[in-house]
Amino acid sequence: MKSIILAVDDIRAIVKRVGRNALMDELILRMTRAFEDYSTEKIKIPMRDGFQYTHPVLGLLEWMPIMEIGQKSTIKIVGYHPHNPNRHQLPTIISTISAFDASTGHLIGLADATFTTALRTGAASALASRLMAKPDSKTLGLIGCGAQAVTQLHALSRIFDFDRVLLHDSDFSVVQSFKERAAFIGIETQPTQLDELVKQSDIVCTATSVEIGEGPVFDAKEYNPWLHVNAVGADFPGKVEVPEDFLKASYVSPDYREQAIKEGECQQLEDAEIGAELVEILQNPDEFKHLKDQPTVFDSTGWALEDQVALEMLLDMAKDFGLGTELDLESISDDPHNPYSFVGDEESVSKNQKAS
Amino acid sequence: MKSIILAVDDIRAIVKRVGRNALMDELILRMTRAFEDYSTEKIKIPMRDGFQYTHPVLGLLEWMPIMEIGQKSTIKIVGYHPHNPNRHQLPTIISTISAFDASTGHLIGLADATFTTALRTGAASALASRLMAKPDSKTLGLIGCGAQAVTQLHALSRIFDFDRVLLHDSDFSVVQSFKERAAFIGIETQPTQLDELVKQSDIVCTATSVEIGEGPVFDAKEYNPWLHVNAVGADFPGKVEVPEDFLKASYVSPDYREQAIKEGECQQLEDAEIGAELVEILQNPDEFKHLKDQPTVFDSTGWALEDQVALEMLLDMAKDFGLGTELDLESISDDPHNPYSFVGDEESVSKNQKAS
Repeated sequence: MKSIILAVDDIRAIVKRVGRNALMDELILRMTRAFEDYSTEKIKIPMRDGFQYTHPVLGLLEWMPIMEIGQKSTIKIVGYHPHNPNRHQLPTIISTISAFDASTGHLIGLADATFTTALRTGAASALASRLMAKPDSKTLGLIGCGAQAVTQLHALSRIFDFDRVLLHDSDFSVVQSFKERAAFIGIETQPTQLDELVKQSDIVCTATSVEIGEGPVFDAKEYNPWLHVNAVGADFPGKVEVPEDFLKASYVSPDYREQAIKEGECQQLEDAEIGAELVEILQNPDEFKHLKDQPTVFDSTGWALEDQVALEMLLDMAKDFGLGTELDLESISDDPHNPYSFVGDEESVSKNQKAS
Repeated sequence: MKSIILAVDDIRAIVKRVGRNALMDELILRMTRAFEDYSTEKIKIPMRDGFQYTHPVLGLLEWMPIMEIGQKSTIKIVGYHPHNPNRHQLPTIISTISAFDASTGHLIGLADATFTTALRTGAASALASRLMAKPDSKTLGLIGCGAQAVTQLHALSRIFDFDRVLLHDSDFSVVQSFKERAAFIGIETQPTQLDELVKQSDIVCTATSVEIGEGPVFDAKEYNPWLHVNAVGADFPGKVEVPEDFLKASYVSPDYREQAIKEGECQQLEDAEIGAELVEILQNPDEFKHLKDQPTVFDSTGWALEDQVALEMLLDMAKDFGLGTELDLESISDDPHNPYSFVGDEESVSKNQKAS
């Protein structure tokens, strides 16, 4: 029974063939539809769990499972190691994702999710900003200009017609390199002092590797009364990016309430201060349209449905383009009652070494 | 950065090259050493978790993680679908396992674990029986004669010098086919009435797919005062194989106490009635040597350390034999701050479709 494996070459071929913009547009479209169709009767998403550690380096390795009841299950394994870029020239987030048939347990496919994690995190912010930010937002502020910032800008630029992008990062070399990394998006970028960035932006995305206990990453001294913040960096107990007073003055929508309370900006809030989950807002846009005129925060901790949508998009495209490696991965025996029968003829060594 | 993938062809090649007996012996040896070295300071094993469902069929899909602190993490994904053999000609258990570098999150390797789950479950019963069963045990009883029974017998036959194997299964065709499936082990098998099997055996292995709430699978009317039972089938809340009165008359050692209380035979016991975990007995053999003379139960729910040992054995052998497929699976960019840089030159489609 075959499993399909999408490796980096396959994903590269998909991106080249489809184009970055069309790929992002397709992901935003699919994610919107998946959110519209979502219900807890059809889909189970337990809170992600994992290992969080400080030795040999600060890091975490988590599993993010989702099950479409009666259909299939998708499990993403994601590593978050903030020292990767400086120590290993590796991205902070490295990830793979697998899909399983819920009627047999068979592994349908495995793919890289390093790229799609950045992609879907951007797409989720695009969905949130479409629902909560001012529709004619012209100025985007990026606090933290690493890998995630590229896809935040890219995804948002597919929804909004920005004039300019204001940049801030605690490491100025990362600000300097951003222009080239985001050149394909074609919007002017400006390194900006932090308070000015917050003051001038219509939308802000925070995507930092701020240390635990060292947040927030900005002060909200002055800001536009319609400011929308996509807070995507918080993913660890104790790690926050958005100041408490701004959270309390805003409508805060988590992607996944329970998880956001544990690892997101919602760590700083009482239960009654937390708004509806993004999926609820998306399913009831009229009820929430006033959010566009007030301060809002999307508390993005990462939701397994986003990952499943991204994986399915890649698997569909790989199928269309004839990409991917098919492997007989599982040792499925002709005789399900004989775990050795997949081996075939008895190996001779074994015959001569019978237990005595 | 390469990940190594061991598919069914690789595992077949390993079994043929090493031989079934030498492979089982090596696994028992490695598992014994891993148990000897185990400490909660060095190794974290959270309880497995997963999806348990009754639609479209009864089944579960679980993740079993383990972390060697500062070294690596291994995560097995295992499906248990008891209707697989009859409906799909597939084994009840289908599984894959992955190893990750704990300093970066990189996927080191992925392998089939369908075969090794059967293998390591056998090896764990061998370890338990060596510590708790009568050393000169001559009669083995198998209740449930499916896939797991083959590796139970095989593993135990590497430790004990059995004269005969007594067989019982609720499906007599499975009893009938067992002889051929276990022929390579070379021990006489006898279909036996259930009470007789229990009465005559020195060691019993229960490995059934008994329905939830339908257990136990035998009555302990008469039995040898040194009877040791390896109960390997219970892996679901409500599923049990061993009668409560026998459990209460026995020393019961779980592989993983917390998990056994939730899913194993220990569901039927009070906390004070549960003995030491197998690893503790293995690390303190003198303290527990009296167990060989009394009724004992190994409550085997499956422990992630067993899976890690099996995976490492296969990876070591694959390396020695030059087996496995190396793939650049993760989309690692040259620039860790640019999620798109692995794509290489800008794709032309995207250039002409810039956001407007």
